[in-house]
Amino acid sequence: MAVYTEVSFEELEGFLADYDIGVPRTFKGIAEGVENSNYYLQTSAGSFILTLYEKRVRADDLPFFLGLLEHLAARGIACPLPVRSRSGAQSTILGGRPAALLTFLDGLSLRRPEATHCAAAGAALAEMHAAGKDFALKRPNALGHNGWRELAQACIPRAEEVEKGLAELIASSLGQLASNWPDGLPEGVIHADLFPDNVLFIDGGVSGLIDFYFACNDALAYDLAVMLNAWCFESDAAFNVTKSKNLIAAYARKRPLSAAEREALPVLAAGAALRFLLTRLYDRLNHDPQALVRPKDPREYSKRLRFHRKVRSPAEYGL
Amino acid sequence: MAVYTEVSFEELEGFLADYDIGVPRTFKGIAEGVENSNYYLQTSAGSFILTLYEKRVRADDLPFFLGLLEHLAARGIACPLPVRSRSGAQSTILGGRPAALLTFLDGLSLRRPEATHCAAAGAALAEMHAAGKDFALKRPNALGHNGWRELAQACIPRAEEVEKGLAELIASSLGQLASNWPDGLPEGVIHADLFPDNVLFIDGGVSGLIDFYFACNDALAYDLAVMLNAWCFESDAAFNVTKSKNLIAAYARKRPLSAAEREALPVLAAGAALRFLLTRLYDRLNHDPQALVRPKDPREYSKRLRFHRKVRSPAEYGL
Repeated sequence: MAVYTEVSFEELEGFLADYDIGVPRTFKGIAEGVENSNYYLQTSAGSFILTLYEKRVRADDLPFFLGLLEHLAARGIACPLPVRSRSGAQSTILGGRPAALLTFLDGLSLRRPEATHCAAAGAALAEMHAAGKDFALKRPNALGHNGWRELAQACIPRAEEVEKGLAELIASSLGQLASNWPDGLPEGVIHADLFPDNVLFIDGGVSGLIDFYFACNDALAYDLAVMLNAWCFESDAAFNVTKSKNLIAAYARKRPLSAAEREALPVLAAGAALRFLLTRLYDRLNHDPQALVRPKDPREYSKRLRFHRKVRSPAEYGL
Repeated sequence: MAVYTEVSFEELEGFLADYDIGVPRTFKGIAEGVENSNYYLQTSAGSFILTLYEKRVRADDLPFFLGLLEHLAARGIACPLPVRSRSGAQSTILGGRPAALLTFLDGLSLRRPEATHCAAAGAALAEMHAAGKDFALKRPNALGHNGWRELAQACIPRAEEVEKGLAELIASSLGQLASNWPDGLPEGVIHADLFPDNVLFIDGGVSGLIDFYFACNDALAYDLAVMLNAWCFESDAAFNVTKSKNLIAAYARKRPLSAAEREALPVLAAGAALRFLLTRLYDRLNHDPQALVRPKDPREYSKRLRFHRKVRSPAEYGL
């Protein structure tokens, strides 16, 4: 959690000259997100987030990300709305980086969501999927199942440094998932990273979804599988079936799951666990000690992956 | 700039139960200060900063720092005001650290203050000195001239790694300052770190002074000497006499400087430059590459120190 690119007041003033949002009152770098530099900006007109996109977010992808937020916000989804400049631009350049100004959402993310929060977040995901249905732009899932083999090859030679048996777990999971990955499930725009960090709550209800910088086109049920991993395990690694039951049921009330989607859940959940295991492992093995971010523990996800590989039926998720 | 200790929403809720400041709406770690973890908190009752004191701030010193802020705020100084808990406590423990809740001040700090800003900041310093006059608690200046020799001894053996000639510069400056350090100047509570980062502006006027965690008792004119270093050099290291003239004149209009204080300015300014040179050098030589903060460049202050050592008369500061 850090700010990578510093923006001075003087640079901010130059930037704001292109926007019709009043005069600045407060401007603070905030420790949020591992990919970008974010500033909280309060002006006479309201509260905003100024984001400078660091290297992991490609400028080419910004029309997709920012366009998606405009599209979703116009359909009633509580997500940050890009503020366009006077000339109509969605993004600009600041401190040598692509930058965008977004509306600020009130609310707090939970570290230990309860089952009722899982239900509220599941319903919010289904609403986002419905609202994203007719979004015109497309973005493939670079971290989808076709991308895992390459990441795995980069990690396997040193995987044992992190956990005994990890190289074998990754190799065998890759093979199993390649044979069993479902085809033909309903697709659409997915968030792809809807962890508790990225869902804001006020008074127990969802007040906003944030951080859409992994959003892409993929199987909608895969998004639910990401949430099964991120929301339904306790800190001692135990799976909480009440939470998953709540999550899935609330989602399905808004967008019913097909029989094929239900059957596919164990494979999708194992795939999602492998995806986060691989990226965390890669970041751990290639961690720059000078970096301002501490890498997350990949072993949380090797445990989840082992759990999902033992699941024999979607009933084990409370379906 | 980083957050060292993470506070979850659940921990925040437990903490806020002891305070009468409404329900939380927004809670964000902010990238501010190199010593502490700071969170921006907005509740139904207003905006606050929650500070967790990391190792460099001693819990024993909190009554001085927090008591000083209460004292100054009661006398009209725009500084953060500690919010007392329902039971009247000024500080508490959160995440295993001493923690305090302070009012949030609007305003922005400037990276490149102009001469008019120097004048406004100088006047604000004099007002702070006047308001601090009758503050009952005392705290010696651990980084005052009596503390430099020890720091220097820790740094000199490796000083040449950072800059050629630095060991000699430090050793000879120490000797010269020890012989010439002024006695008997007016003393009081000083901020001791009033860099542009720590002065907030709105519409060109000072809206607040922040970060009092080096505050202590010392010669008042030494505080002005710190500001001469921090506000009056350009990014190319050139001294800007218009800025120093503005700074000193605005200060002296609020608190006239005695002849002894004027005469002492070159020595005090050299001392202040040595103080920041030594702490930056120490931090650079002892930098933990895992740390979340990048050490500042000590060479900015070796240049300032060389400048002040050549000053023959306070007239060179525009007096």
